[in-house]
Amino acid sequence: MYLWVALAIGVLGLISALLFARSVLASDAGTPEMRAISDAIREGAEAFMRRQYTTIAVLAVVIAALLYAGYSFSPRTAPYAAVTVISFLIGAVCSGFAGYTGMYVSIRANIRTASAARTSLNRAIQSALRGGAVTGLIVVALALIGLGLLFLAFGGFNHPQEVPYRLVGFGFGASLVALFAQLGGGIYTKAADVGADLVGKVEAGIPEDDPRNPAVIADLVGDNVGDCAGRGADIFESTAAESVGAMILGAALYPVFGLKGILFPLVVHAINLIASTVGVMVVHSKENEEPMHALNRGYYVTSLLAIVGFAVAVYFMLGARWWLFGCGVLGMATSYLFVVITEYYTESRYRPVQSIARASLTGPATNIISGLAVGMETPAMPVLVISAALLLSYYFGVRGLEDAHVANYAKGIYGTAIATMGMLSSAAYILAMDTFGPITDNAGGIIEMSNQPESIRERTDKLDAAGNTTKALTKGYAVGSAALAAFLLFSAYLEEIRNVVVDRVSVPGGYMPADWSFNNVNLASVPVFVGALLGAVLVYLFSSLAIQAVGRTAQYIIQDVRAQFKENPGIMLGTSKPDYGRCVSIVTKAALKEMVLPGMLVVLLPLVVGEVFRHFSSSFRVGAGINMPSIHGVPVNLSGAEAVAALLMVGTITGILMAMLMNNGGGAWDNAKKYIESGQYGGKRSEAHKAAVVGDTVGDPFKDTAGPSLHVLIKLLATITLVLAPLFL
Amino acid sequence: MYLWVALAIGVLGLISALLFARSVLASDAGTPEMRAISDAIREGAEAFMRRQYTTIAVLAVVIAALLYAGYSFSPRTAPYAAVTVISFLIGAVCSGFAGYTGMYVSIRANIRTASAARTSLNRAIQSALRGGAVTGLIVVALALIGLGLLFLAFGGFNHPQEVPYRLVGFGFGASLVALFAQLGGGIYTKAADVGADLVGKVEAGIPEDDPRNPAVIADLVGDNVGDCAGRGADIFESTAAESVGAMILGAALYPVFGLKGILFPLVVHAINLIASTVGVMVVHSKENEEPMHALNRGYYVTSLLAIVGFAVAVYFMLGARWWLFGCGVLGMATSYLFVVITEYYTESRYRPVQSIARASLTGPATNIISGLAVGMETPAMPVLVISAALLLSYYFGVRGLEDAHVANYAKGIYGTAIATMGMLSSAAYILAMDTFGPITDNAGGIIEMSNQPESIRERTDKLDAAGNTTKALTKGYAVGSAALAAFLLFSAYLEEIRNVVVDRVSVPGGYMPADWSFNNVNLASVPVFVGALLGAVLVYLFSSLAIQAVGRTAQYIIQDVRAQFKENPGIMLGTSKPDYGRCVSIVTKAALKEMVLPGMLVVLLPLVVGEVFRHFSSSFRVGAGINMPSIHGVPVNLSGAEAVAALLMVGTITGILMAMLMNNGGGAWDNAKKYIESGQYGGKRSEAHKAAVVGDTVGDPFKDTAGPSLHVLIKLLATITLVLAPLFL
Repeated sequence: MYLWVALAIGVLGLISALLFARSVLASDAGTPEMRAISDAIREGAEAFMRRQYTTIAVLAVVIAALLYAGYSFSPRTAPYAAVTVISFLIGAVCSGFAGYTGMYVSIRANIRTASAARTSLNRAIQSALRGGAVTGLIVVALALIGLGLLFLAFGGFNHPQEVPYRLVGFGFGASLVALFAQLGGGIYTKAADVGADLVGKVEAGIPEDDPRNPAVIADLVGDNVGDCAGRGADIFESTAAESVGAMILGAALYPVFGLKGILFPLVVHAINLIASTVGVMVVHSKENEEPMHALNRGYYVTSLLAIVGFAVAVYFMLGARWWLFGCGVLGMATSYLFVVITEYYTESRYRPVQSIARASLTGPATNIISGLAVGMETPAMPVLVISAALLLSYYFGVRGLEDAHVANYAKGIYGTAIATMGMLSSAAYILAMDTFGPITDNAGGIIEMSNQPESIRERTDKLDAAGNTTKALTKGYAVGSAALAAFLLFSAYLEEIRNVVVDRVSVPGGYMPADWSFNNVNLASVPVFVGALLGAVLVYLFSSLAIQAVGRTAQYIIQDVRAQFKENPGIMLGTSKPDYGRCVSIVTKAALKEMVLPGMLVVLLPLVVGEVFRHFSSSFRVGAGINMPSIHGVPVNLSGAEAVAALLMVGTITGILMAMLMNNGGGAWDNAKKYIESGQYGGKRSEAHKAAVVGDTVGDPFKDTAGPSLHVLIKLLATITLVLAPLFL
Repeated sequence: MYLWVALAIGVLGLISALLFARSVLASDAGTPEMRAISDAIREGAEAFMRRQYTTIAVLAVVIAALLYAGYSFSPRTAPYAAVTVISFLIGAVCSGFAGYTGMYVSIRANIRTASAARTSLNRAIQSALRGGAVTGLIVVALALIGLGLLFLAFGGFNHPQEVPYRLVGFGFGASLVALFAQLGGGIYTKAADVGADLVGKVEAGIPEDDPRNPAVIADLVGDNVGDCAGRGADIFESTAAESVGAMILGAALYPVFGLKGILFPLVVHAINLIASTVGVMVVHSKENEEPMHALNRGYYVTSLLAIVGFAVAVYFMLGARWWLFGCGVLGMATSYLFVVITEYYTESRYRPVQSIARASLTGPATNIISGLAVGMETPAMPVLVISAALLLSYYFGVRGLEDAHVANYAKGIYGTAIATMGMLSSAAYILAMDTFGPITDNAGGIIEMSNQPESIRERTDKLDAAGNTTKALTKGYAVGSAALAAFLLFSAYLEEIRNVVVDRVSVPGGYMPADWSFNNVNLASVPVFVGALLGAVLVYLFSSLAIQAVGRTAQYIIQDVRAQFKENPGIMLGTSKPDYGRCVSIVTKAALKEMVLPGMLVVLLPLVVGEVFRHFSSSFRVGAGINMPSIHGVPVNLSGAEAVAALLMVGTITGILMAMLMNNGGGAWDNAKKYIESGQYGGKRSEAHKAAVVGDTVGDPFKDTAGPSLHVLIKLLATITLVLAPLFL
């Protein structure tokens, strides 16, 4: 019954997304001049998306084939080969579709927002937020419907404890597409941005968003493909991966809750859809109000409704165990605290940004040193929040399930899973706020390029500032949810390994100790420690490759712009139009080429570690091996599974910290520049401003390429290890 | 017998250090003009050291009192309170003495090297290297003699299996002094460097090492107190901590080797002393040879002798188990590979430095991005080397001890311990090469400031370049040894906890399973995961604080230099001398104030985590708790000990990677600047050069403050957890 309700709400979510899209698309689309610019952005974005999804599709098919081959190799896993690959492909297609439709609406909402800004701030905000809400609702609804239907199709009502494991392919498919979407989009957007700035502002001395710059359309396209499509795919995989993880843990609690515990995550996302739709609808701003206030009101309404919905769901589905409701509240509190901490580190009102601005007085070197110091400081408070949330929600879980006859560990971990669900229960609204950012950014660009009067620009500048804030906050939210979910996904991996081991020893001579579970990832064992080291290195190497990719791609743009200025001197005089399309096409090709290497590194490393380490001799085992699953007295060799677990866990820790450093450091640099531009320390064109521009440029690939890609990397690691788990034994 | 031989060689090591010192001090001390500069450096360095050691002494006494109180609190640990505190204080004093004497000779060797450079390159090299060898030999000899005598004094021959645990205080004392020495010195040296550069080169437009700059003596003092004294204390604690760790593991193998296994690490250091003395003596350079070639010859001779000595020691002490000799060879190979990899990332012949230099063409932002990308790439190869070394030496250990009746884990870990010993078996020579750096740097400064002819400057420039290379290489070596030793020290901690648990359950109703050992640091348990997160955050926060300290201290210098220029216009005209002492005194005070906060963070966090988590309820325990040590059926609560273990391990992993990023990134920026200065990409005073100077300045606090302090932090974490272990249960 709960599944049908959830699915129905999922469909309703899709319908309300459609209605939002219709209401946005029906509004005025501005002057022909504005439309010309908007059309150029749209064409560029669509061309990029087409090519990108073609590339990703090829990669996905190759990986699907490998996955099928890997699963077919052993008679133990062969029966699951087909289901796993099917759910992988469906996950990948849904993820791509979520990213694509989100962007489809955004690149049409930008001009409507620009047009609305000519008359009313309120209508502009509503237009941008509703455009963003389309992405938010579609993403969550697709994850809900996709998982729900697969659960049905795989016979979830008959084998409820087994089917969740068959869904891991869906999460992996979603993550894989998300990684490449975020990485390719992130490289595109920052290469275009850095390239356009360096060659336009610095070399040619023309302002930002000047129509004479041949790279200016590529820059605006970047906002859409990087921020909208990338973040959409990112949140889609969060929703999918964390739901699958929570369903697996629910399966472990089947004796307590039955089917309800497994379906709970899907119901939470149904609540999410309702609460977020209402939240988006109530947003309404006065003409002279700060746009952030209006957006925050919507967030509070969403959170309140989500809490109420959560309480109802706990009452009906989890037997009114209020400790578990407490876990959900903890999750929401965590997401709120993450937003507050991110604000502290990235807004110019507070010490960190001001210290960077002050350091700009002594030049770019001290600006950079100070920004890096702020970046390295940022993880401390969020980690304390996450630690408290994990410990408390674990404890609440144990208390809430005191009477249940399962191990304490399973109870506690289910508590952390519910906290994660709580954190994600406003995801659709958060994503709408996030997509608000690139839409308003584009609207500002269109207004600027079509030479609208100053008063309208002021309005779009206000919107743009709010969009920058929402983008920074949602990045904080995304890291926070990744950190909290990490634990849930580790546990799903451990459950999955246990499952595989049970399967493995169910042969003649096999022995399974009654109380054995694979929850021992022992850092004191050499292979595990080596796995941990490799996990940490993966994060560093991936970040390095992503940043280098931006640099290389930006070089292509710089060369093309220089060539265009040389070939056609009329561009600078304003007498002839530059060839925007050529720039767009060059950066598209380069970004897609550059995303393959770092992406494949993430996919292949866990596979290689698992496959190599599973052949390690038993002399690497720690402890006496009593009471271990064994076949004919020989303990099952878990070296591969353990090393991969350590890779996953330490890779996650390293990734979370590095992502915070990059996101917040980059955001702080950006706002330190804006703070100086607002007239502090000499204002625009002062030496301090020049130094701050250097910091901002350094921060760009941090906060918009490597940082957001790391969120996705963390979750991809979790889902890929889940899918490959059977191959590590 | 072996102990007496080792101690005798230790005394011989001290004597040969004395002879080297005499031979250096007896040589010509240059012109009166040169002596005036050298005296100013000496006075500044000695004033800093006096104040620094006073501050450290106060901190050490406070910590000793806390340690005594903590140990006295429980009747189980009270009997060890006095011994632990005594060995702590002796370790601290030895460490301070090692740092001080090394610096004492260096600040006198600098002028002798400068003077020798006026006539012969060979004599200059020999003077600098022998001055450095004094530090190297004293450091290793003191560690050997200190540990040997404490072993005797605590009755090592009667209770050989217990006494090594009583030595952990020695390692902790050494690490504590090393951390503050490296941190205070590192802040001093880079604040003086950055401050002098910003206000001299950038603001006043005078060249480096110009006598008109009031901060120039402070800058030269910094080379001594940061590099000589800091690195001396660093290697002292490495030697001490790793020897204690290896002795503890030797105690676990007492049934196999008896006393010899425990004394083996001390004998290896005796070999180290002999091999390094010979290595230093054979260094001899032709007038037109690259100085690095001569230094490398000495390194090869040292390594060869160390291998031979190692083989002899294995033959007599470890029963000719040649697999174990293989472990030693692996350790030496690891140290060689680390040096090669560091060369690749920091020398201008190779891609990384060249890519940074090329990126400087498009300005400081791309220079910084490219340098950070290189820095993040650097850990990959070293981690592969360390992983291979750990896996192989573990395997060799198991093979070499196949016939012994101890657990595989103990065998394998002893193998990694022997590999660490192998890596450290040329430590004295490496340290001599390292101290060579600041001596030649100072010699160059003295030559520059006393206006010597161009031909002599060329000679000191060559020496200086070699000194920069040796400094970079030894940093690579220091991280490598920290990484390899990390595992050994983890294992010592696990042994120590087991020991404490055995003690704990030896009461009526206590139960100790026969095969139980504490080797389970389970990342899937929430408290352990939180400990791991906190360990990673510690590294980030510490780095942030250290870098911020440099920035703040540099500001004081800038202000003072500006004030001096204003008060006394004669300085810039060259008619009156600036007040060098005032700058030295200001930066001394500021650096010592700034080192306290980050230093105390490292000391207090493990204590707080251990004490808080030991009170966690049993509901956080993973697994059923069968076969656990217990008292009246209640399992011993290991939450505190486990969380600290994870903090230690993940803190170590994060620290190693971050240290590599900072050391190699900083070195690469430095050499990219030098590469451009050599005439590439427009040479000196080009735009690319300006951009490269920004990168170099950013790299300074990375490679000379935060990076080297992280090596010490890693080892301090290991020793502090060893000492505090009894308090976590």
